[in-house]
This record gives sequence, C-alpha cells and structure tokens, in this order.
Amino acid sequence: MSLIVQKYGGTSIGDIERIEQVAEKVAGFRANGDDIVVVVSAMSGETNRLIELAHEVQKRPLPREMDVLVSTGEQVTTALLTMALNERGVKAKSYTGSQVRIHTDSAHTKARIREIDDERLHRDLKAGFVLVVAGFQGADEEGNITTLGRGGSDTTAVALAAVLKADECQIYTDVDGVYTTDPRVVDSARRLSKVTFEEMLEMASMGSKVLQIRAVEFAGKYNVPLRVLHSFKEGPGTLITTEDDRKMETPTIAGIAFNRDEAKLTIEGVPDTPGVAYQILGPIGNANIEVDVIVQNISHDNTVDFTFTVSRTELPRAEEILNEVARDIKAAKVSSNNKIAKVSVVGVGMRSHAGVASQMFEALAEVGINILMITTSEIKISVIVEEKFLELAVRALHSSFGLDAEPSNESED
Amino acid sequence: MSLIVQKYGGTSIGDIERIEQVAEKVAGFRANGDDIVVVVSAMSGETNRLIELAHEVQKRPLPREMDVLVSTGEQVTTALLTMALNERGVKAKSYTGSQVRIHTDSAHTKARIREIDDERLHRDLKAGFVLVVAGFQGADEEGNITTLGRGGSDTTAVALAAVLKADECQIYTDVDGVYTTDPRVVDSARRLSKVTFEEMLEMASMGSKVLQIRAVEFAGKYNVPLRVLHSFKEGPGTLITTEDDRKMETPTIAGIAFNRDEAKLTIEGVPDTPGVAYQILGPIGNANIEVDVIVQNISHDNTVDFTFTVSRTELPRAEEILNEVARDIKAAKVSSNNKIAKVSVVGVGMRSHAGVASQMFEALAEVGINILMITTSEIKISVIVEEKFLELAVRALHSSFGLDAEPSNESED
Repeated sequence: MSLIVQKYGGTSIGDIERIEQVAEKVAGFRANGDDIVVVVSAMSGETNRLIELAHEVQKRPLPREMDVLVSTGEQVTTALLTMALNERGVKAKSYTGSQVRIHTDSAHTKARIREIDDERLHRDLKAGFVLVVAGFQGADEEGNITTLGRGGSDTTAVALAAVLKADECQIYTDVDGVYTTDPRVVDSARRLSKVTFEEMLEMASMGSKVLQIRAVEFAGKYNVPLRVLHSFKEGPGTLITTEDDRKMETPTIAGIAFNRDEAKLTIEGVPDTPGVAYQILGPIGNANIEVDVIVQNISHDNTVDFTFTVSRTELPRAEEILNEVARDIKAAKVSSNNKIAKVSVVGVGMRSHAGVASQMFEALAEVGINILMITTSEIKISVIVEEKFLELAVRALHSSFGLDAEPSNESED
Repeated sequence: MSLIVQKYGGTSIGDIERIEQVAEKVAGFRANGDDIVVVVSAMSGETNRLIELAHEVQKRPLPREMDVLVSTGEQVTTALLTMALNERGVKAKSYTGSQVRIHTDSAHTKARIREIDDERLHRDLKAGFVLVVAGFQGADEEGNITTLGRGGSDTTAVALAAVLKADECQIYTDVDGVYTTDPRVVDSARRLSKVTFEEMLEMASMGSKVLQIRAVEFAGKYNVPLRVLHSFKEGPGTLITTEDDRKMETPTIAGIAFNRDEAKLTIEGVPDTPGVAYQILGPIGNANIEVDVIVQNISHDNTVDFTFTVSRTELPRAEEILNEVARDIKAAKVSSNNKIAKVSVVGVGMRSHAGVASQMFEALAEVGINILMITTSEIKISVIVEEKFLELAVRALHSSFGLDAEPSNESED
C-alpha cells in the first residue's frame, strides 16, 4: 500500500464533468488500496474571474484581500470533488490551506510555505479518508489567508508529499509527460520516461510550462519522487528524480529547450572603469526587470560593449532606463533587438561528456545559423539566435544529439 | 462616537456597483467618527449558483462539504467590499467566520452560534479598522467550516452586536422599515418608527420576511437595539426594541400580519380517549411537518373533531399520514382545504387592553367574513378565513385598529 499525493490543475477540473472524471480516477486508486491525498486548483477560469472582480473595485487590490478573494476558488473545488468522491462511495474530506494547516510567511499573493501540521492529515488518512486539499493557499502566523502565487498548487502538492513522506507526488496536467523538446516544433520529439530535477529546472525555466519551478526545486530539495502525467490519458508519464536513479546509458542530452520571449539590449562604447557593470545593470534590477543572458566583450580602446537579454514585454521600460544610464556614464550608443530567441541543450550528462558545446555549434553551423550570444552552465548551453531560425535550430539540435524518437523501442522502465 | 454593526444582504451587494455604493455609505459613517463592523452576505445569486453546482455532483450533498462550498460566497464579498473601502481611503479588514472566530456547534448547514472571540475584533477596531465580516458562517470546535442556514447573516450581525456591546445593529434591506401591514394589500399601510421584539417575532413568523426570526430572538435575548433600513434610500427605518422604550400613546395594535401559505386538515369522529391528540399529531411531527393552528372541538357522542393547519406544500404528505392515522384509530373521516389564509392582529398593547378580540371579530363580521378557526396568544390574535377574503380582512382590520396612515403627522421620534 502506497501513499500518493496527486495534484489536478485547473483544466483537469475545469467543469463538473471533469471533476467527476477525476473522482472516478481517484476512486480507482483508492480501490487499489492506496492512500490518496488530492491537491486541487480552482476550476479553470475561476481565478481570473475573481481577479477581474477585484480590479473592478480597486486599481491595485489590497494583497491581503486578494488572497481572501482568490483562495475561494480552490475551496469550491475541494468541496465539489469531495462530494463527487462521496457519491462514488469513497470516504473523503476537504481541507482549506488554513485547516491543514499550511503555515506560510505573510507575503500576501506570493507567500512561502514554512511548515505543515501533518497530525490531522495522518489521523484522517488512518481513518480511511481520501484527503482533498486546496492548493495554492495557506495561513500566516496570525491566521490571515495567504496564497503561494500562480501555479502554487504544484508547490502545495510537493510540500505535502515531503511532509507526509509520500511514495510519489503525481502532477496531472494536459500533457502526458516531459518531452525532449516541444512536439509542435519537432515531430519526432520523444517523451522522457525519466529526467533529473536539475534538468527539469533548466527545461522549466526555458518555457516548458509543465511544472512550476518552485515545485521542482522543492521536490529536489526534499527528494520527493515527482511524476508528470496526463489527467485523462493512460500512460506512465515522466518521473522526475535524482541523478542517481539514471541508467548508465542515459543519453548525454535530455532535451532541447527554447524561449521566444527574449529581447536584447546593447550599450556600446562604455568607458571601461571598475563598477561599470553595476552602473548599467543596477538600475535595471531596481526596476524589477529580470536580466537573463549577459555578455561583456573584451575592452578595446578603453571602452567595452555590454549586451543583455530581458523578456520582450520589459524591453520598452528597459530601453528607457538604459538610455538614461548611457547619458550618465557617457556611453556611445544604445541599441535593441526583439527578434531573437534562445535555444538550449540541457542534460546532466554533459558534466562528464566533453564536446557538447562544439557539437552544438557545429550542428547550428551546418544549417547556417549565426550565433548572437552564448551562455553556459554545468548542465546547459544556451545560444541566442535570430528568431526566424528558432525552429530550424531546435530541429537540428534535436537530431544531432540523437533525441529523435525511434518509433518501436522506447523502454518504459 | 458609537459602535454600529451593519448588515447588508445579497441584493444590497448584488454586483460590483452595489458593493461600491455600500462602500460609499460605510465611508460616510466612518467620516462621522463611528466605529463600524459590516456583516455581508454573498452577492445575490451566488449561493444558489454554488448549491446548484453541488447538486450536479451529488444528489444529497455532504453537509460538511456544502458548508465549505457555500461559505465561499460571503468570503468573496468581504474581500471585494474591503478593497472598495480601501480604494476610498478607509482602513478596512475582512474576516471569515473562522477567523473572527465565530464558534458554532457542528450542525452543518444549520449551525448555532455558541461563542464569539471578540479580542481580535476589539484590537482591530481600536487600530481604526472598519471590520468586514462574512455573515452566515462560523467554525466548530474542530475548525470545520459551518453555516448558520439561510438568512443566517442577520444572526451573525446581531450576535456580533451583542458581543461587542454595539450601540445599534442595523439591518439594511430592500424595504425601508417594518409596516403596519403589507403595503401591496393596504395602500395606507404605515411604516412603524418603533416595534417591540415580541411584535416583530409575531410579524416575522406571519410572513413579513424583513428579518430572520432567529436574529430577532437573539436581539431580544441580548437586548440589542435592532434597526431595519433601506440600503439605498435615506430614512430612519424601524427600530426594534424592548417594550420599555415605547411611549404611553403607543396604539394597542402594531400591525396586521397575514399568511397565504396555509392549508387545513380535519379528522372527524375521533373516539375521545386519552392520548388521542398525540396519536394524531405525533406521526405528523415525526414526518417533520410543522403544525400551526390546532383546534379540537368539544366532545360530542364520545367522539371529537380535530382540525389543524400546515403549510400548503406539506398538505399532500400530511393528508397521506392522516389517512393512515384515521384507519388506525378508527376515525370517521379526513378532509382538507388549501384555500384558506391566516390573518393576525399583533401588538404588545393588547396585554393591557381588553376587547381586542371582540373588536377584531366585529370588524370582520361587518364586512361579512366568516371565521373558520381562531387562535390567540398574549400579543396576537389569529383567525383562519377563506383565502378569497384575505385582502378584505386585512384592510378592514387595518382601518378598524386605526393603523391607516395620516399623511401629515407621522412623528419620527
């Protein structure tokens, strides 16, 4: 008998019919003798509806009240799913975040979990209940309702799995697993049966929106086996686990990630004095603009060029700030380009395999793609290319690193 | 500086525009220097929407989960109203029933309030906050969410006013006060500036649906001055208070109440033995059917006739039960009539004034109305008449007891 924590997101429980399908599914697991804790999101569309109501009333809604408001979305789902389980003869009980209790800090709308009381949960599991817990929410020391921020239900599920020492944390979504790259770009993209936490983090941050980054970090930290599965299709999904679990034959590269939402800014002819990087990036950071790739070229005539990328929506604001900076530090020129994209090869295997970078550059050169910027980490190499070459680059790399599906021999271990 | 508890019902906060109107109103009171606690219901239609969702999932929804579900309705309103107040520069804070905390028993969907912790409320009032409390809900000893049943928000408001020793509990509704009778029946019906708790109870139970009976009982028990006002029209409303507050000149009769939802059942030729009343009404009570007026005529040939009234929707079920009883106790006959109505004169004044009954019967006789049944209490006399005479009876009594409005000299004391 296992203890499984399952999380169903907004589209998995988008309407009454879906809630009933999930109830059937959970009843099946229960019939197999497993103990089940279900974490649910709000029905799809509900959170947005509530947020819109708030914005009708107040331009910048009070964060404390925003949490009171949107946390009702998950509460509704817990009650309905519990009823649906009960209707199928399954003993079940709903919990709000406050009731569990999931203790958080007081950072309304983006709170962090501090501690979870598992006493009541263990008692009710022992009494044979399926526990249906509202995701995404908790309560601070004072009993104020808090929320973990969008997608926080994944984090709730992982945190509960960690505290309850669950055998597995299953995240049910609208995809059947984690792929070597986006199947809409590469036909032969292949579902991975396993991927490491680190790889998953690199894939997620690159726009594979399967799992919330915080949840993956959390799972990695507490070593919670995490599985991504499709809510309504059968299949083993993808297990996200520690590196040690991997087989010797694991390919060097787990997948090709990419991100279109990139823009780059260049400031040229910056006098090369100590602290100049801070002078440029400090004001950008203060404006809460996240910077991704940063490249500084070698000094030349006592001036340097600085290039960095931001998300496209931030480009106008970043450019405005950079123009001011350029005046202050007497730089020669500011230029920008929002027709770029980032492509990355990700894999823990590259730690012990030399030549991944050169293989990557070779593959891109063969199809005539010019690399604009390069950045590397222990398990990832990213390049910035012109956006029009994005699909071509992804396909070339997917093929070059041997990720294309071989229709008949994928093992499921 | 006064402490006022105000309750706004579903139609008063039916949409965002109304919530903003209520916020304006509360902001006005705050500007006058009063401390304000606002109790809110769910936005109109929301509770029904949630109940329908539950019934889609489960034929008889789990009561515990029903409370988890519907309590979100009030929670949403508290957050939105708090935001709207904040937008107008008024410091405000929302509370769920669990957060206050409003301790109740565990009778889900119809819980009773046991105790209210007022410490946190006093602290926040002292800190200058307007408190916005979710009506209709609480939490039991285990922290399970409970609801007080439909209309329970009035009860929440009165209970908070009692605990906080508020100067007044104001119930904002879609009528501008309590009337001598239904203005749709009698044009000259007059708003009462004051009415006693006892009179209000008799009026409420007769179908003047201004206030929940439980709330009036509660207010009477704890001597909370209760005022019924219109949400969006100016005016002093009606103050519901103890008898001692009334002037000497108070008219004998406060109002004429009536109820169309009546049906009567007669069982004839019942052998007159001890315990026969119980044999007849026991099975009716066991079936959870409420009996109102009961009349037993004088024994005659060792048999008696029994007549009682029930609400019309219960008639078929009551009749079925009574037919069984008739067979068991060998009664002669069962008959029924659902074309009847009840008319009552209500007033604490009748305690010290003889002749109210005879004046009532005379007034009805003058317009040729036959009385089918009579029942009396200390402050109420009710008669059952044929339904077709209802309006005529109400108008005749309203006029006979001097309740008709005199357009120019109503004092507002």
